Amino acid sequence: MAGTGGRGRCSAKGSGSPRRRPIRRRRRARVLLTTIAAVPPDFFDVVQTQRAARSFLPDDVDDPTVVRILTAATHAPSAENSQPFVFVVVRDGALRAAIGAMTARLWRGGARALEEQRLSPAFLHDVDRGAMGGIAAAPVLVVVCGDTRLAFPQTMDASVFPAVQNLLLAAHALGLGSTLTTLPVVAGDELSTLLGLPPEVVPVAVVPLGYLPAPLAAPRRRPLSEKAHLNTYGTPFP
Amino acid sequence: MAGTGGRGRCSAKGSGSPRRRPIRRRRRARVLLTTIAAVPPDFFDVVQTQRAARSFLPDDVDDPTVVRILTAATHAPSAENSQPFVFVVVRDGALRAAIGAMTARLWRGGARALEEQRLSPAFLHDVDRGAMGGIAAAPVLVVVCGDTRLAFPQTMDASVFPAVQNLLLAAHALGLGSTLTTLPVVAGDELSTLLGLPPEVVPVAVVPLGYLPAPLAAPRRRPLSEKAHLNTYGTPFP
Repeated sequence: MAGTGGRGRCSAKGSGSPRRRPIRRRRRARVLLTTIAAVPPDFFDVVQTQRAARSFLPDDVDDPTVVRILTAATHAPSAENSQPFVFVVVRDGALRAAIGAMTARLWRGGARALEEQRLSPAFLHDVDRGAMGGIAAAPVLVVVCGDTRLAFPQTMDASVFPAVQNLLLAAHALGLGSTLTTLPVVAGDELSTLLGLPPEVVPVAVVPLGYLPAPLAAPRRRPLSEKAHLNTYGTPFP
Repeated sequence: MAGTGGRGRCSAKGSGSPRRRPIRRRRRARVLLTTIAAVPPDFFDVVQTQRAARSFLPDDVDDPTVVRILTAATHAPSAENSQPFVFVVVRDGALRAAIGAMTARLWRGGARALEEQRLSPAFLHDVDRGAMGGIAAAPVLVVVCGDTRLAFPQTMDASVFPAVQNLLLAAHALGLGSTLTTLPVVAGDELSTLLGLPPEVVPVAVVPLGYLPAPLAAPRRRPLSEKAHLNTYGTPFP
């Protein structure tokens, strides 16, 4: 988890020594990201380097950037082209803090104990930091919902998660970090009340958006040969 | 639905007049798509022009192309980075025909009657043609599954549909058509038997891959202003 360590060292909570002043680091990261974003991003580069971010700079993400990301999200397919996705762009500090508190409570209240048995120590540390405030510290939380007036329950996930993936990819293409989280949705009623959602609009995921303290390391993935089969299960592909 | 009409006119079932010979059309389409694919595809172009295809040329899609597409799919995020996605690449003609027959049976046996009330006539015609053989005629059907040994049921959809979206986008980036279908999954047990899936591996979607008779028209999407809210539901964003 070299990437996690790197992000930790470069975060706003850095050592404070003259050579590692947070503001300086932050500016450098912003310049780098702006340069990347100025070149039209290659599709396969974006897809193959996208990765979950769980700590963010406090720097604002402006409306045109959020609009561009969410417009990409709306281009995802949906059953019957029903487009049941709904995006609540949470910028308000009190609301973000409330979502963060809810996430931390769910994490401490059971999710962490479960993950302790399943994740590597470094991965657990990263997720822990995200759930305990890292994600809520992003300047924008997008609560992605499904409108049950537009799609059947059986096809809702197939009609919303592709839009979430477009959202994550578009954020990365523009040099922003993000991550797909579903933990806050476990307390869906509470989240609905916070955001004033009508009963027909159901939260599905919470995605933070923000600039990164440092670039993320490459994602860790199993080779395709472990995941692909030809014609019948167990026959190697390719 | 200009796009649907356009695809119909350019399909292999064209009028047969000397100026509209199917083979000639097909060659021209392949040349065009190859030219497009030779330029590194811009991320936002790919995302904003991706669209469901429901009829395909019989031309083969080679293994390196399928590998590139599925490798992109494996880069999608998943809960706990569990990567529970499984891809069965169905090339065998008898298996594709069986999946096609199953899809047509489910379509005629209830799904079509339901959609008649919900889709426009042009859209219904396109979906009808796809369900009654158009999709099964693609040279490759990718059956995307979820391995329940790797992810909890609650997070399976969030861990598989992002991979499906990467798959669709990557296919489009390489000049191929595809579409996310879930109808065959309604008969999941039958599909599992056909593909020899172990009981822990559950079909989630079927995605055809193939070259297109003609480029697709632009996707039809509601404006973002109808889908986005600021802080609380009902407050316009941006």
